[in-house]
Amino acid sequence: MQAVVIQEGKLQIVERDAPVPGPDEVVVAVRAAGINAADLLQLQGIYPAPPGWPVDIPGLEMAGIVSAVGRDVHEALLGRRVCAVVGGGAQATHCLVPAEHLTFVPEQVGWSEAGGFAEAFTTAHDGLVTQAGLREGERVLVSGASGGVGTAAVQIANRLGAHITAVTRSDVHHEALRALGADETITLGEVAGIGHVDVVLELVGAAHLALAQKVLAPFARVVIIGVGGGSRMDLDLLNLMATRATLTGSTLRSRSRQEKAEVIARVNEELVPLWASDQLRVPLAQTFELADAAAAYEHFARPGKFGKIVLLVEQ
Amino acid sequence: MQAVVIQEGKLQIVERDAPVPGPDEVVVAVRAAGINAADLLQLQGIYPAPPGWPVDIPGLEMAGIVSAVGRDVHEALLGRRVCAVVGGGAQATHCLVPAEHLTFVPEQVGWSEAGGFAEAFTTAHDGLVTQAGLREGERVLVSGASGGVGTAAVQIANRLGAHITAVTRSDVHHEALRALGADETITLGEVAGIGHVDVVLELVGAAHLALAQKVLAPFARVVIIGVGGGSRMDLDLLNLMATRATLTGSTLRSRSRQEKAEVIARVNEELVPLWASDQLRVPLAQTFELADAAAAYEHFARPGKFGKIVLLVEQ
Repeated sequence: MQAVVIQEGKLQIVERDAPVPGPDEVVVAVRAAGINAADLLQLQGIYPAPPGWPVDIPGLEMAGIVSAVGRDVHEALLGRRVCAVVGGGAQATHCLVPAEHLTFVPEQVGWSEAGGFAEAFTTAHDGLVTQAGLREGERVLVSGASGGVGTAAVQIANRLGAHITAVTRSDVHHEALRALGADETITLGEVAGIGHVDVVLELVGAAHLALAQKVLAPFARVVIIGVGGGSRMDLDLLNLMATRATLTGSTLRSRSRQEKAEVIARVNEELVPLWASDQLRVPLAQTFELADAAAAYEHFARPGKFGKIVLLVEQ
Repeated sequence: MQAVVIQEGKLQIVERDAPVPGPDEVVVAVRAAGINAADLLQLQGIYPAPPGWPVDIPGLEMAGIVSAVGRDVHEALLGRRVCAVVGGGAQATHCLVPAEHLTFVPEQVGWSEAGGFAEAFTTAHDGLVTQAGLREGERVLVSGASGGVGTAAVQIANRLGAHITAVTRSDVHHEALRALGADETITLGEVAGIGHVDVVLELVGAAHLALAQKVLAPFARVVIIGVGGGSRMDLDLLNLMATRATLTGSTLRSRSRQEKAEVIARVNEELVPLWASDQLRVPLAQTFELADAAAAYEHFARPGKFGKIVLLVEQ
């Protein structure tokens, strides 16, 4: 198979042996694989792959067709269109996935969109619903709303019936965010003026949360998922006591296989029906061929894009 | 009645009309009233009493004898020995308490100890058990362990079967903390070396928590209750994400009457039986007469004491 490989801090396209599925795994012939912030951190050498996953092939999500199944996996999975979050190795022509981590891609959805669904929507759903317990009628603040997780979060929060304030760096994304379901779109400098929020989905980090901590409602829940805008913040402990707010951080990547299976089961149950009926979509900033992965990463690192960057894979 | 009153930033002893109980309230003839950090903040003008409580009479806890009951309160309460957490007004000869906020003081417990029980043990129990969900066999770090809440927390955590690391500023309190149930006693500078903890009960604030954040176990729970050692901290968001730890802050004082009743019901159910069988005690640093409240506050503000400072009230 062909794979994107990190060699001495650079991305190369390399020929590798195709993976062989373990008893409860499948191999997916990849058609599209999204890029995520964790890939850039891995390229920089500061966010290694978790144990048991390819150490030098990046990629946390992909979509494609099941091309081989392990001994204990039902053969009916062969040929099915699937997508999945993985611990690594997605940016290749073939990718190993635990069978219980698969999501079936709805018929009408194209590969590029399918390749950018799993990580963003799983992360956003886990953060908003499972971690923060966002409920109908509550107010939620989503920072970094123009990115992959942000555009997923705006849609999920809207379908839950929450009031959404979306924060974006770019002046040009306000209309697109409102089209996805944001009730209010602001820039970072306007956070202080929005009134209290019940939930903060923090996708930017210190630069945003230092401001957002001042608009927490009583019993607010803050879930920290991204720290591209700084990972050290000046936290006001008295304010945390007065509001009785809760801060927690989370990554999908570090979770056990069983934990991931539970998270994905909720996505399959609660989000895939909405995706299948066109109530969710994956906004695509740009697609690149697998061979152009280096250019795709460079594009990903630049601000100002809206939605996902996805690598397309020829089979 | 006589009351400690805050006048222009100073404590005075003043004659006031005795309170009259509302339909579901009682009046307690106070025999002892503990001093808490919140009293000092109120004296400094930065922590006003919550709505519905005396605005200028400090005191969050007391013990005494029920001397009057409201229309809807059973007369059998008259003459009973009780203690309670209140929103304010405890440092006086008479104090109003919602009837459902009372705790019955065990027969063998003296007034000075009873006057220092309610706030410390209720705060510690709510923080460790209700907020942090501390379980048998877990490791807990208690900062400010020599104070009222700290000495209560060490005892409660020990009775729960947790492993306790107690942090104290003073070199002379280690043995006393171990006698209460601490497995390990350290000073602030030694926090980095203790290994991972599942729960942090933060009674000091930024000065301690900046160090403690580096020893959090996966899924650690941090409950912030005191910030005398600084209320602004440099929080490491990446560490919070990697450990999937949770930070929350809490005060008893700001809670609704119903919320307080629920907290106190748990104390009555889970702690009072231990108190009645001499398995919990209130370490007393020093007692003062009500008339010497100013001197007692000064003593409270100084470091190095062990346990509670309690005002004794003549009737």
